[in-house]
Amino acid sequence: MRILVTNDDGIYAEGIYALAGALARVGEVTVVAPDTQRSAVGHAITLTDPLRVTEARRNKKFFGYATSGTPADCVKLAIKSIMKGKPDLVVSGINLGANSGMNILYSGTVSGATEGALLGIPSFAISLDTFVRPDFSVAADFAAKLAQALNKKRLPKGTLLNVNVPAVPRTRLKGVKFTSQSHELFRDWFQKRTDPHGQTYYWMTGKFRTSAAKPGSDVEAIDKGHISVTPIQFDLTDYKFLSELETWDI
Amino acid sequence: MRILVTNDDGIYAEGIYALAGALARVGEVTVVAPDTQRSAVGHAITLTDPLRVTEARRNKKFFGYATSGTPADCVKLAIKSIMKGKPDLVVSGINLGANSGMNILYSGTVSGATEGALLGIPSFAISLDTFVRPDFSVAADFAAKLAQALNKKRLPKGTLLNVNVPAVPRTRLKGVKFTSQSHELFRDWFQKRTDPHGQTYYWMTGKFRTSAAKPGSDVEAIDKGHISVTPIQFDLTDYKFLSELETWDI
Repeated sequence: MRILVTNDDGIYAEGIYALAGALARVGEVTVVAPDTQRSAVGHAITLTDPLRVTEARRNKKFFGYATSGTPADCVKLAIKSIMKGKPDLVVSGINLGANSGMNILYSGTVSGATEGALLGIPSFAISLDTFVRPDFSVAADFAAKLAQALNKKRLPKGTLLNVNVPAVPRTRLKGVKFTSQSHELFRDWFQKRTDPHGQTYYWMTGKFRTSAAKPGSDVEAIDKGHISVTPIQFDLTDYKFLSELETWDI
Repeated sequence: MRILVTNDDGIYAEGIYALAGALARVGEVTVVAPDTQRSAVGHAITLTDPLRVTEARRNKKFFGYATSGTPADCVKLAIKSIMKGKPDLVVSGINLGANSGMNILYSGTVSGATEGALLGIPSFAISLDTFVRPDFSVAADFAAKLAQALNKKRLPKGTLLNVNVPAVPRTRLKGVKFTSQSHELFRDWFQKRTDPHGQTYYWMTGKFRTSAAKPGSDVEAIDKGHISVTPIQFDLTDYKFLSELETWDI
Protein backbone atom coordinates (compact mmCIF):
# COMPACT_ATOMS: atom_id res chain seq x y z
CA MET A 1 0.00 0.00 0.00
CA ARG A 2 1.52 3.34 -1.09
CA ILE A 3 0.55 6.23 1.14
CA LEU A 4 1.02 9.95 0.48
CA VAL A 5 1.16 12.03 3.66
CA THR A 6 0.72 15.80 3.84
CA ASN A 7 -0.45 18.44 6.32
CA ASP A 8 -0.86 22.18 6.78
CA ASP A 9 1.21 22.69 9.93
CA GLY A 10 4.35 22.17 7.84
CA ILE A 11 6.76 19.28 7.34
CA TYR A 12 8.58 19.95 10.62
CA ALA A 13 5.41 19.75 12.77
CA GLU A 14 5.11 17.00 15.38
CA GLY A 15 1.76 15.78 14.06
CA ILE A 16 3.00 14.76 10.62
CA TYR A 17 5.99 12.99 12.14
CA ALA A 18 3.76 10.87 14.38
CA LEU A 19 1.42 10.20 11.46
CA ALA A 20 4.13 9.14 9.01
CA GLY A 21 5.66 6.88 11.67
CA ALA A 22 2.38 5.07 12.36
CA LEU A 23 1.50 4.73 8.66
CA ALA A 24 4.94 3.25 7.90
CA ARG A 25 3.75 0.17 9.81
CA VAL A 26 1.03 -0.47 7.24
CA GLY A 27 2.45 0.84 3.96
CA GLU A 28 5.17 2.62 2.02
CA VAL A 29 4.98 6.29 3.02
CA THR A 30 5.93 9.36 0.94
CA VAL A 31 5.75 12.70 2.75
CA VAL A 32 5.18 15.86 0.68
CA ALA A 33 4.22 18.83 2.85
CA PRO A 34 4.55 22.62 3.07
CA ASP A 35 7.96 23.92 4.17
CA THR A 36 6.29 26.12 6.81
CA GLN A 37 2.90 26.49 8.49
CA ARG A 38 0.03 26.99 6.02
CA SER A 39 -2.96 27.00 8.36
CA ALA A 40 -6.31 28.45 7.24
CA VAL A 41 -5.30 28.46 3.58
CA GLY A 42 -8.55 26.77 2.58
CA HIS A 43 -8.38 25.00 -0.76
CA ALA A 44 -5.81 27.43 -2.16
CA ILE A 45 -3.46 26.53 -4.99
CA THR A 46 -0.44 28.47 -6.22
CA LEU A 47 -0.77 29.75 -9.76
CA THR A 48 1.18 32.98 -9.72
CA ASP A 49 4.45 31.70 -8.24
CA PRO A 50 6.62 28.75 -9.14
CA LEU A 51 6.83 25.94 -6.57
CA ARG A 52 10.11 24.85 -5.00
CA VAL A 53 10.79 21.39 -3.60
CA THR A 54 13.57 20.52 -1.15
CA GLU A 55 14.41 17.37 0.76
CA ALA A 56 13.62 17.49 4.46
CA ARG A 57 15.48 15.53 7.14
CA ARG A 58 14.29 14.71 10.63
CA ASN A 59 16.34 12.90 13.27
CA LYS A 60 19.21 12.90 10.75
CA LYS A 61 17.25 10.81 8.24
CA PHE A 62 15.48 11.69 5.01
CA PHE A 63 11.85 12.38 5.96
CA GLY A 64 10.15 13.77 2.86
CA TYR A 65 9.74 16.62 0.39
CA ALA A 66 9.12 20.15 1.60
CA THR A 67 7.38 22.45 -0.88
CA SER A 68 6.77 26.18 -1.02
CA GLY A 69 3.09 25.49 -1.76
CA THR A 70 -0.18 24.84 0.02
CA PRO A 71 -1.43 21.38 1.09
CA ALA A 72 -3.44 21.12 -2.17
CA ASP A 73 -0.31 22.06 -4.14
CA CYS A 74 1.64 19.36 -2.27
CA VAL A 75 -0.83 16.64 -3.19
CA LYS A 76 -0.97 17.70 -6.85
CA LEU A 77 2.80 17.98 -7.07
CA ALA A 78 3.38 14.67 -5.27
CA ILE A 79 1.07 12.75 -7.55
CA LYS A 80 1.97 14.46 -10.80
CA SER A 81 5.69 15.03 -10.39
CA ILE A 82 7.31 13.48 -7.32
CA MET A 83 5.83 9.98 -6.89
CA LYS A 84 5.91 7.42 -9.65
CA GLY A 85 2.22 6.75 -10.22
CA LYS A 86 -0.78 7.36 -7.98
CA PRO A 87 -0.68 6.40 -4.31
CA ASP A 88 -3.35 4.10 -2.89
CA LEU A 89 -4.19 6.54 -0.11
CA VAL A 90 -3.72 10.21 0.81
CA VAL A 91 -3.63 11.15 4.50
CA SER A 92 -3.44 14.74 5.74
CA GLY A 93 -2.54 15.62 9.34
CA ILE A 94 -2.27 15.16 12.21
CA ASN A 95 -3.48 18.71 12.65
CA LEU A 96 -2.96 20.57 15.89
CA GLY A 97 -6.55 21.57 16.68
CA ALA A 98 -9.88 20.08 15.54
CA ASN A 99 -11.25 20.65 12.05
CA SER A 100 -14.98 20.46 12.49
CA GLY A 101 -18.17 22.30 11.62
CA MET A 102 -18.12 25.06 9.02
CA ASN A 103 -14.49 25.76 9.89
CA ILE A 104 -13.40 22.87 7.66
CA LEU A 105 -13.86 25.33 4.78
CA TYR A 106 -10.80 27.22 6.03
CA SER A 107 -8.79 24.10 6.75
CA GLY A 108 -5.59 23.36 4.88
CA THR A 109 -5.52 19.91 6.49
CA VAL A 110 -8.90 18.99 5.02
CA SER A 111 -7.94 20.53 1.67
CA GLY A 112 -4.95 18.17 1.35
CA ALA A 113 -7.28 15.19 1.61
CA THR A 114 -9.86 16.91 -0.61
CA GLU A 115 -7.30 17.23 -3.37
CA GLY A 116 -6.61 13.49 -3.06
CA ALA A 117 -10.33 12.70 -3.35
CA LEU A 118 -10.71 15.01 -6.38
CA LEU A 119 -7.89 13.05 -8.03
CA GLY A 120 -9.81 9.82 -7.40
CA ILE A 121 -7.71 8.50 -4.50
CA PRO A 122 -9.13 7.29 -1.14
CA SER A 123 -8.25 10.07 1.30
CA PHE A 124 -8.72 11.21 4.85
CA ALA A 125 -7.81 14.19 7.03
CA ILE A 126 -7.04 13.71 10.71
CA SER A 127 -6.91 16.32 13.48
CA LEU A 128 -6.34 16.27 17.23
CA ASP A 129 -8.65 18.44 19.32
CA THR A 130 -6.07 20.37 21.32
CA PHE A 131 -3.54 23.16 20.97
CA VAL A 132 -1.60 22.40 24.15
CA ARG A 133 0.71 19.51 25.09
CA PRO A 134 -0.50 17.30 22.25
CA ASP A 135 -0.09 13.53 22.47
CA PHE A 136 -0.46 12.35 18.89
CA SER A 137 -0.15 8.62 19.63
CA VAL A 138 -3.86 7.75 19.84
CA ALA A 139 -4.62 9.66 16.63
CA ALA A 140 -1.59 8.14 14.86
CA ASP A 141 -2.65 4.61 15.79
CA PHE A 142 -6.18 5.28 14.60
CA ALA A 143 -4.81 6.62 11.30
CA ALA A 144 -2.93 3.34 10.76
CA LYS A 145 -6.07 1.33 11.54
CA LEU A 146 -8.21 3.43 9.20
CA ALA A 147 -5.58 3.17 6.46
CA GLN A 148 -5.80 -0.62 6.66
CA ALA A 149 -9.60 -0.49 6.57
CA LEU A 150 -9.48 1.74 3.48
CA ASN A 151 -7.24 -0.80 1.78
CA LYS A 152 -10.26 -3.14 1.77
CA LYS A 153 -13.35 -0.90 1.82
CA ARG A 154 -14.42 1.55 -0.85
CA LEU A 155 -15.29 5.23 -0.52
CA PRO A 156 -17.67 6.77 -3.08
CA LYS A 157 -15.87 8.70 -5.84
CA GLY A 158 -15.12 12.23 -4.58
CA THR A 159 -15.93 11.44 -0.92
CA LEU A 160 -13.26 11.63 1.76
CA LEU A 161 -13.25 11.12 5.51
CA ASN A 162 -12.68 13.94 7.97
CA VAL A 163 -11.43 12.48 11.26
CA ASN A 164 -11.19 14.31 14.59
CA VAL A 165 -9.67 12.73 17.66
CA PRO A 166 -10.44 14.08 21.13
CA ALA A 167 -7.45 14.87 23.33
CA VAL A 168 -8.21 12.31 26.02
CA PRO A 169 -6.01 9.52 27.37
CA ARG A 170 -6.35 6.23 25.46
CA THR A 171 -8.21 4.64 28.38
CA ARG A 172 -10.91 7.32 28.34
CA LEU A 173 -11.50 7.23 24.58
CA LYS A 174 -15.07 6.17 23.79
CA GLY A 175 -14.68 4.63 20.34
CA VAL A 176 -15.67 5.80 16.86
CA LYS A 177 -18.78 7.77 15.84
CA PHE A 178 -19.76 8.33 12.22
CA THR A 179 -21.01 11.88 12.14
CA SER A 180 -22.36 14.74 10.06
CA GLN A 181 -20.60 18.09 9.75
CA SER A 182 -22.02 20.52 12.28
CA HIS A 183 -22.90 24.07 11.34
CA GLU A 184 -20.79 25.67 14.07
CA LEU A 185 -18.28 28.32 13.08
CA PHE A 186 -15.75 30.65 14.58
CA ARG A 187 -17.13 33.83 16.03
CA ASP A 188 -14.35 36.11 14.90
CA TRP A 189 -13.56 39.78 15.19
CA PHE A 190 -10.64 42.13 14.62
CA GLN A 191 -8.31 43.91 16.98
CA LYS A 192 -7.42 47.31 15.56
CA ARG A 193 -3.90 48.45 16.42
CA THR A 194 -1.47 51.19 15.48
CA ASP A 195 2.08 50.32 14.44
CA PRO A 196 5.19 52.28 15.59
CA HIS A 197 4.90 54.38 12.40
CA GLY A 198 1.35 55.51 13.20
CA GLN A 199 -0.31 53.19 10.69
CA THR A 200 -3.42 51.13 11.47
CA TYR A 201 -3.49 47.35 11.16
CA TYR A 202 -5.92 44.61 12.11
CA TRP A 203 -5.45 41.20 13.73
CA MET A 204 -8.12 38.59 13.19
CA THR A 205 -9.01 36.72 16.34
CA GLY A 206 -11.94 34.67 17.50
CA LYS A 207 -13.31 31.72 19.33
CA PHE A 208 -15.23 28.61 18.45
CA ARG A 209 -18.95 28.73 18.99
CA THR A 210 -19.80 25.93 21.39
CA SER A 211 -23.53 26.50 21.57
CA ALA A 212 -25.73 23.44 21.12
CA ALA A 213 -23.90 21.23 18.63
CA LYS A 214 -26.16 19.47 16.13
CA PRO A 215 -27.05 15.96 17.39
CA GLY A 216 -25.02 13.33 15.55
CA SER A 217 -22.45 15.92 14.51
CA ASP A 218 -18.65 16.00 14.57
CA VAL A 219 -18.59 18.64 17.31
CA GLU A 220 -20.92 16.65 19.55
CA ALA A 221 -18.94 13.43 19.11
CA ILE A 222 -15.58 15.06 19.90
CA ASP A 223 -17.03 16.84 22.95
CA LYS A 224 -18.25 13.51 24.30
CA GLY A 225 -14.87 11.81 23.85
CA HIS A 226 -15.49 9.89 20.61
CA ILE A 227 -13.32 9.78 17.51
CA SER A 228 -15.47 11.55 14.90
CA VAL A 229 -15.43 10.29 11.29
CA THR A 230 -17.40 12.48 8.86
CA PRO A 231 -17.78 11.54 5.18
CA ILE A 232 -17.58 14.75 3.15
CA GLN A 233 -18.04 15.51 -0.55
CA PHE A 234 -17.86 18.57 -2.77
CA ASP A 235 -21.00 18.75 -4.83
CA LEU A 236 -22.11 21.94 -3.08
CA THR A 237 -25.42 22.23 -4.93
CA ASP A 238 -28.33 22.99 -2.63
CA TYR A 239 -30.62 20.53 -4.47
CA LYS A 240 -33.50 21.12 -2.08
CA PHE A 241 -33.52 24.84 -2.79
CA LEU A 242 -32.83 24.37 -6.52
CA SER A 243 -36.42 23.28 -7.16
CA GLU A 244 -37.75 26.34 -5.34
CA LEU A 245 -35.38 28.56 -7.28
CA GLU A 246 -36.95 27.32 -10.53
CA THR A 247 -40.04 29.36 -9.62
CA TRP A 248 -38.07 32.63 -9.38
CA ASP A 249 -38.67 34.99 -12.24
CA ILE A 250 -35.35 36.73 -12.88
CA MET B 1 -30.25 48.50 0.25
CA ARG B 2 -26.65 48.37 1.49
CA ILE B 3 -24.39 46.25 -0.70
CA LEU B 4 -20.87 45.04 0.08
CA VAL B 5 -18.80 44.33 -3.04
CA THR B 6 -15.61 42.28 -3.14
CA ASN B 7 -13.65 40.13 -5.62
CA ASP B 8 -10.44 38.13 -5.98
CA ASP B 9 -8.96 39.85 -9.04
CA GLY B 10 -8.13 42.86 -6.85
CA ILE B 11 -9.70 46.27 -6.32
CA TYR B 12 -8.19 47.69 -9.52
CA ALA B 13 -9.65 45.00 -11.79
CA GLU B 14 -12.15 45.98 -14.47
CA GLY B 15 -14.77 43.48 -13.31
CA ILE B 16 -15.29 44.95 -9.85
CA TYR B 17 -15.49 48.45 -11.30
CA ALA B 18 -18.28 47.43 -13.68
CA LEU B 19 -20.02 45.55 -10.86
CA ALA B 20 -19.89 48.40 -8.34
CA GLY B 21 -21.14 50.82 -11.00
CA ALA B 22 -24.17 48.70 -11.85
CA LEU B 23 -25.02 47.97 -8.21
CA ALA B 24 -24.86 51.69 -7.34
CA ARG B 25 -28.06 52.02 -9.39
CA VAL B 26 -29.93 49.78 -6.93
CA GLY B 27 -28.26 50.42 -3.57
CA GLU B 28 -25.56 52.02 -1.49
CA VAL B 29 -22.31 50.26 -2.39
CA THR B 30 -19.22 49.72 -0.20
CA VAL B 31 -16.23 48.13 -1.94
CA VAL B 32 -13.73 46.17 0.18
CA ALA B 33 -11.40 44.07 -1.95
CA PRO B 34 -7.85 42.71 -2.06
CA ASP B 35 -5.14 45.22 -2.98
CA THR B 36 -3.79 42.83 -5.64
CA GLN B 37 -4.88 39.67 -7.43
CA ARG B 38 -5.78 36.81 -5.06
CA SER B 39 -7.00 34.18 -7.52
CA ALA B 40 -7.20 30.50 -6.52
CA VAL B 41 -6.90 31.30 -2.82
CA GLY B 42 -9.89 29.12 -1.99
CA HIS B 43 -11.51 29.95 1.32
CA ALA B 44 -8.27 31.16 2.87
CA ILE B 45 -8.17 33.60 5.76
CA THR B 46 -5.16 35.43 7.17
CA LEU B 47 -4.29 34.47 10.73
CA THR B 48 -0.51 34.82 10.83
CA ASP B 49 -0.19 38.36 9.45
CA PRO B 50 -1.93 41.58 10.36
CA LEU B 51 -4.25 43.06 7.75
CA ARG B 52 -3.74 46.51 6.27
CA VAL B 53 -6.47 48.68 4.82
CA THR B 54 -5.95 51.61 2.45
CA GLU B 55 -8.32 53.82 0.50
CA ALA B 56 -8.41 53.14 -3.23
CA ARG B 57 -9.25 55.73 -5.88
CA ARG B 58 -10.37 55.11 -9.43
CA ASN B 59 -10.97 57.80 -12.02
CA LYS B 60 -9.82 60.31 -9.40
CA LYS B 61 -12.68 59.42 -7.03
CA PHE B 62 -12.79 57.37 -3.84
CA PHE B 63 -13.74 53.84 -4.91
CA GLY B 64 -13.33 51.63 -1.85
CA TYR B 65 -11.06 49.96 0.68
CA ALA B 66 -8.12 47.86 -0.47
CA THR B 67 -6.91 45.23 1.99
CA SER B 68 -3.83 43.04 2.21
CA GLY B 69 -6.09 40.01 2.78
CA THR B 70 -8.05 37.41 0.85
CA PRO B 71 -11.66 37.84 -0.33
CA ALA B 72 -12.90 36.04 2.83
CA ASP B 73 -10.76 38.41 4.95
CA CYS B 74 -12.25 41.39 3.08
CA VAL B 75 -15.82 40.34 3.84
CA LYS B 76 -15.08 39.66 7.52
CA LEU B 77 -13.17 42.93 7.89
CA ALA B 78 -15.82 44.94 6.04
CA ILE B 79 -18.66 43.64 8.18
CA LYS B 80 -16.85 43.63 11.51
CA SER B 81 -14.69 46.75 11.26
CA ILE B 82 -15.26 48.94 8.19
CA MET B 83 -19.02 49.15 7.63
CA LYS B 84 -21.40 50.32 10.30
CA GLY B 85 -23.65 47.27 10.73
CA LYS B 86 -24.32 44.36 8.40
CA PRO B 87 -24.99 44.96 4.71
CA ASP B 88 -28.17 43.60 3.12
CA LEU B 89 -26.24 41.85 0.37
CA VAL B 90 -22.70 40.67 -0.43
CA VAL B 91 -21.67 40.42 -4.09
CA SER B 92 -18.30 39.06 -5.24
CA GLY B 93 -16.97 39.57 -8.77
CA ILE B 94 -17.16 40.08 -11.64
CA ASN B 95 -14.48 37.45 -12.03
CA LEU B 96 -12.47 37.19 -15.21
CA GLY B 97 -13.12 33.53 -16.13
CA ALA B 98 -15.95 31.17 -15.15
CA ASN B 99 -16.17 29.61 -11.69
CA SER B 100 -17.97 26.36 -12.30
CA GLY B 101 -17.75 22.66 -11.51
CA MET B 102 -15.36 21.42 -8.86
CA ASN B 103 -13.11 24.40 -9.56
CA ILE B 104 -15.29 26.59 -7.35
CA LEU B 105 -13.40 25.01 -4.43
CA TYR B 106 -10.32 26.97 -5.51
CA SER B 107 -12.20 30.17 -6.21
CA GLY B 108 -11.55 33.31 -4.24
CA THR B 109 -14.55 34.92 -5.93
CA VAL B 110 -16.92 32.27 -4.62
CA SER B 111 -15.26 32.37 -1.20
CA GLY B 112 -16.06 36.08 -0.83
CA ALA B 113 -19.75 35.30 -1.25
CA THR B 114 -19.43 32.17 0.91
CA GLU B 115 -18.14 34.28 3.78
CA GLY B 116 -21.17 36.53 3.40
CA ALA B 117 -23.52 33.53 3.53
CA LEU B 118 -21.74 32.11 6.59
CA LEU B 119 -22.32 35.45 8.30
CA GLY B 120 -26.03 35.17 7.51
CA ILE B 121 -26.20 37.71 4.67
CA PRO B 122 -27.77 37.05 1.23
CA SER B 123 -24.78 36.68 -1.10
CA PHE B 124 -23.82 35.85 -4.65
CA ALA B 125 -20.67 35.40 -6.70
CA ILE B 126 -20.61 36.41 -10.36
CA SER B 127 -18.11 35.44 -13.06
CA LEU B 128 -17.75 36.06 -16.78
CA ASP B 129 -16.73 33.10 -18.92
CA THR B 130 -13.79 34.61 -20.76
CA PHE B 131 -10.19 35.64 -20.24
CA VAL B 132 -9.90 37.79 -23.36
CA ARG B 133 -11.44 41.17 -24.29
CA PRO B 134 -14.08 40.99 -21.55
CA ASP B 135 -17.27 43.01 -21.85
CA PHE B 136 -18.64 43.10 -18.31
CA SER B 137 -21.81 45.06 -19.12
CA VAL B 138 -24.20 42.10 -19.50
CA ALA B 139 -22.96 40.50 -16.28
CA ALA B 140 -23.05 43.83 -14.42
CA ASP B 141 -26.65 44.46 -15.49
CA PHE B 142 -27.65 40.98 -14.42
CA ALA B 143 -25.98 41.54 -11.04
CA ALA B 144 -28.12 44.65 -10.51
CA LYS B 145 -31.27 42.74 -11.47
CA LEU B 146 -30.41 39.83 -9.16
CA ALA B 147 -29.61 42.24 -6.30
CA GLN B 148 -33.09 43.71 -6.64
CA ALA B 149 -34.65 40.24 -6.68
CA LEU B 150 -32.73 39.29 -3.53
CA ASN B 151 -34.10 42.37 -1.82
CA LYS B 152 -37.52 40.68 -2.01
CA LYS B 153 -36.86 36.92 -2.11
CA ARG B 154 -35.23 34.82 0.60
CA LEU B 155 -32.30 32.43 0.32
CA PRO B 156 -32.06 29.56 2.83
CA LYS B 157 -29.64 30.25 5.69
CA GLY B 158 -26.09 29.40 4.54
CA THR B 159 -27.01 29.12 0.86
CA LEU B 160 -25.58 31.50 -1.71
CA LEU B 161 -25.87 31.84 -5.48
CA ASN B 162 -22.99 31.18 -7.84
CA VAL B 163 -23.62 33.01 -11.11
CA ASN B 164 -21.74 32.50 -14.37
CA VAL B 165 -22.37 34.65 -17.43
CA PRO B 166 -21.36 33.45 -20.90
CA ALA B 167 -19.24 35.84 -22.96
CA VAL B 168 -21.77 36.37 -25.73
CA PRO B 169 -23.26 39.60 -27.07
CA ARG B 170 -26.44 40.67 -25.27
CA THR B 171 -28.55 39.77 -28.31
CA ARG B 172 -27.34 36.16 -28.30
CA LEU B 173 -27.84 35.59 -24.57
CA LYS B 174 -30.38 32.83 -23.94
CA GLY B 175 -31.72 33.77 -20.50
CA VAL B 176 -31.24 32.28 -17.04
CA LYS B 177 -30.90 28.59 -16.11
CA PHE B 178 -30.96 27.39 -12.51
CA THR B 179 -28.33 24.69 -12.40
CA SER B 180 -26.43 22.17 -10.30
CA GLN B 181 -22.66 22.28 -9.85
CA SER B 182 -21.02 19.99 -12.38
CA HIS B 183 -18.23 17.63 -11.38
CA GLU B 184 -15.78 18.89 -13.98
CA LEU B 185 -12.34 19.97 -12.83
CA PHE B 186 -9.08 21.26 -14.18
CA ARG B 187 -6.79 18.67 -15.62
CA ASP B 188 -3.55 20.11 -14.31
CA TRP B 189 0.09 19.22 -14.47
CA PHE B 190 3.48 20.78 -13.72
CA GLN B 191 6.18 22.16 -15.94
CA LYS B 192 9.57 21.43 -14.40
CA ARG B 193 12.17 24.12 -15.10
CA THR B 194 15.66 25.09 -14.00
CA ASP B 195 16.39 28.64 -12.84
CA PRO B 196 19.55 30.61 -13.80
CA HIS B 197 21.19 29.32 -10.59
CA GLY B 198 20.69 25.66 -11.50
CA GLN B 199 17.77 25.11 -9.10
CA THR B 200 14.61 23.25 -10.05
CA TYR B 201 11.17 24.83 -9.85
CA TYR B 202 7.67 23.88 -10.97
CA TRP B 203 4.87 25.83 -12.63
CA MET B 204 1.33 24.56 -12.27
CA THR B 205 -0.58 24.67 -15.50
CA GLY B 206 -3.70 22.98 -16.82
CA LYS B 207 -6.87 23.10 -18.79
CA PHE B 208 -10.54 22.74 -18.08
CA ARG B 209 -12.03 19.35 -18.78
CA THR B 210 -14.82 19.90 -21.28
CA SER B 211 -15.93 16.29 -21.61
CA ALA B 212 -19.67 15.63 -21.30
CA ALA B 213 -20.94 18.17 -18.78
CA LYS B 214 -23.62 16.84 -16.42
CA PRO B 215 -27.12 17.63 -17.80
CA GLY B 216 -28.65 20.55 -15.93
CA SER B 217 -25.24 21.70 -14.73
CA ASP B 218 -23.50 25.06 -14.62
CA VAL B 219 -20.99 24.02 -17.30
CA GLU B 220 -23.71 22.87 -19.69
CA ALA B 221 -25.75 26.06 -19.24
CA ILE B 222 -22.78 28.37 -19.84
CA ASP B 223 -21.69 26.37 -22.91
CA LYS B 224 -25.15 26.77 -24.39
CA GLY B 225 -25.23 30.54 -23.84
CA HIS B 226 -27.35 30.74 -20.69
CA ILE B 227 -26.62 32.66 -17.50
CA SER B 228 -26.10 29.89 -14.95
CA VAL B 229 -27.34 30.39 -11.36
CA THR B 230 -26.33 27.60 -8.96
CA PRO B 231 -27.48 27.58 -5.33
CA ILE B 232 -24.61 26.28 -3.20
CA GLN B 233 -24.28 25.45 0.49
CA PHE B 234 -21.53 24.21 2.78
CA ASP B 235 -22.83 21.26 4.73
CA LEU B 236 -20.38 18.91 3.00
CA THR B 237 -21.64 15.76 4.74
CA ASP B 238 -22.14 12.86 2.34
CA TYR B 239 -25.42 11.84 4.01
CA LYS B 240 -26.06 9.05 1.52
CA PHE B 241 -22.77 7.39 2.34
CA LEU B 242 -23.03 8.12 6.08
CA SER B 243 -25.61 5.36 6.56
CA GLU B 244 -23.37 2.86 4.75
CA LEU B 245 -20.43 3.96 6.84
CA GLU B 246 -22.34 3.02 10.00
CA THR B 247 -21.84 -0.64 8.99
CA TRP B 248 -18.04 -0.28 8.94
CA ASP B 249 -16.30 -1.94 11.83
CA ILE B 250 -13.31 0.28 12.65
